[in-house]
Amino acid sequence: MNKKLLVVGTMAYDAIETPFDKIDRILGGAATYIALASSKFNTDCGLVSVIGDDFAAQDLRKLTDLGVDVSGVETVKGGKTFFWHGRYHDDMNTRTTMDTQLNVLADFTPVVPPEFRDSNVVMIGNLHPAVQNSAVDQLHAEQQFIILDSMNFWMENFKDDLDQVIRKVDLITINDEEARILSGEFSLPKAAEKIHALGPRYVIIKKGEHGAMLFGEGKIFIAPAYPIDQVVDPTGAGDSFAGGLAGLLAQADTIDFECLKQALVVGSVFASFTVEAFGVTAIEQATSTQIQKRVDAFRALTSFEWNNALLNL
Amino acid sequence: MNKKLLVVGTMAYDAIETPFDKIDRILGGAATYIALASSKFNTDCGLVSVIGDDFAAQDLRKLTDLGVDVSGVETVKGGKTFFWHGRYHDDMNTRTTMDTQLNVLADFTPVVPPEFRDSNVVMIGNLHPAVQNSAVDQLHAEQQFIILDSMNFWMENFKDDLDQVIRKVDLITINDEEARILSGEFSLPKAAEKIHALGPRYVIIKKGEHGAMLFGEGKIFIAPAYPIDQVVDPTGAGDSFAGGLAGLLAQADTIDFECLKQALVVGSVFASFTVEAFGVTAIEQATSTQIQKRVDAFRALTSFEWNNALLNL
Repeated sequence: MNKKLLVVGTMAYDAIETPFDKIDRILGGAATYIALASSKFNTDCGLVSVIGDDFAAQDLRKLTDLGVDVSGVETVKGGKTFFWHGRYHDDMNTRTTMDTQLNVLADFTPVVPPEFRDSNVVMIGNLHPAVQNSAVDQLHAEQQFIILDSMNFWMENFKDDLDQVIRKVDLITINDEEARILSGEFSLPKAAEKIHALGPRYVIIKKGEHGAMLFGEGKIFIAPAYPIDQVVDPTGAGDSFAGGLAGLLAQADTIDFECLKQALVVGSVFASFTVEAFGVTAIEQATSTQIQKRVDAFRALTSFEWNNALLNL
Repeated sequence: MNKKLLVVGTMAYDAIETPFDKIDRILGGAATYIALASSKFNTDCGLVSVIGDDFAAQDLRKLTDLGVDVSGVETVKGGKTFFWHGRYHDDMNTRTTMDTQLNVLADFTPVVPPEFRDSNVVMIGNLHPAVQNSAVDQLHAEQQFIILDSMNFWMENFKDDLDQVIRKVDLITINDEEARILSGEFSLPKAAEKIHALGPRYVIIKKGEHGAMLFGEGKIFIAPAYPIDQVVDPTGAGDSFAGGLAGLLAQADTIDFECLKQALVVGSVFASFTVEAFGVTAIEQATSTQIQKRVDAFRALTSFEWNNALLNL
């Protein structure tokens, strides 16, 4: 029997500008990327989100074609899907939000379908922390592994709500800037220590093109980003990372530090596909063979033999 | 018989400002850091540089106490030592140069002592490329491994001189911004490819707190920075990295990609000591035991077992 994975988060249409190109309207949203990525695994993946009736049937089919259960996606009649417009800077690693139209997201109350309340792994994408909390409160399996994403806006404006949900989760995945804001510490090892104290046993700090760091059980693991020749659109990289991570974790009988290391590596590989094309196209189309090939290459990229005779001090 | 390592580069006094502290005058200079780091290895290390007669005897003793041969260090009577004043930004990873006084460096003509002309490994620190070239032209061993550092200023203003020296070296170590300037490519793998075409078989791109990448023999290796709790002063991190790297390479009978991977790891460890205190203090005082301990920890930080059953796609 397949393990179950629940994804809660936004579905959206995005407008994206990079220094090299722009696109006016394209399928996006954290949960879309997460679900597309994690659906690559043999897992029963359920999605909880909200869309307007402007959401194209063909876009929903991208998810159902990959086996994602969309019974938890609410369609608001007469409503418009969440819209985000971002502009990437020359470094392609930082961006400015030009416009955010919450639309149907403004009144989103997630309802987790009964058959996904006991999911083995739950990935709660970036949302208002009170909304995240209401989703978490519907869960009821023992030894459920809950992963939370968040962002600086919630940390700065809804810290109490965030504190409530953060203490219920096993793992938080945030970027370096957010880790610094959440903890008030500049040093990432120190930041992780403070974040552990808020609840999560494990902390993953994403650094975009510079990879990611995993903290937990008193240990640190660092994985680089998978190097690619050309970044076309960084949108969804962090969410594809989270989706690959959650998908792998959902295969494991026991989730521990060793298992999380592998999940970090797979997450990096998944993110590397996403950034190679605009929107969800590249992660949607990545094949098992391509994924396996990059995982193998990743190991070569980071592994080294150690001949201690050369450390002739 | 010990292998021989030659270091050519600047010795300096630095003024350093960080968001947390400042210091008016402290021993610095690329070659100082490189020589202090590489002298940790059982290698005959020779230093070629220039100082004014304001250079403190006790500062020179820091080098000779660690076994560095300073017969190639010219003292200019009545001259003042090169002075650099830098201010680090809040991220502690970028900085602004507030003042540069070349002083005796303006007329520096390096003379490599005859006994170091056949050094096994030669590390040419950041200098005017014409000066670098004149040092390289004095070398005469077969299978000598030459490492070059440079910076954006030379790339932008003395490209012809740089082209002359760059084609004679085996390895170039530069940072990500410099790699992009030198190659005209944003993508680091593409940048490395273009730089290979200029001469160096191996390219190391340093990314400060984000680690370093090694390119060569059609392969890539990526090492993170060794994570530390608090960066006090990043000055000399890249040079300590280069010194650790060169010191390890000088132990090897054959320098190949595998050996360079180890050198990258050791370089990262050496840099991690340097940034923990102002100036050269921390790298000067790092013991063999401390270095070995961080090298062992580094392996744990980056290594992972791979259970392909979890990649259940």
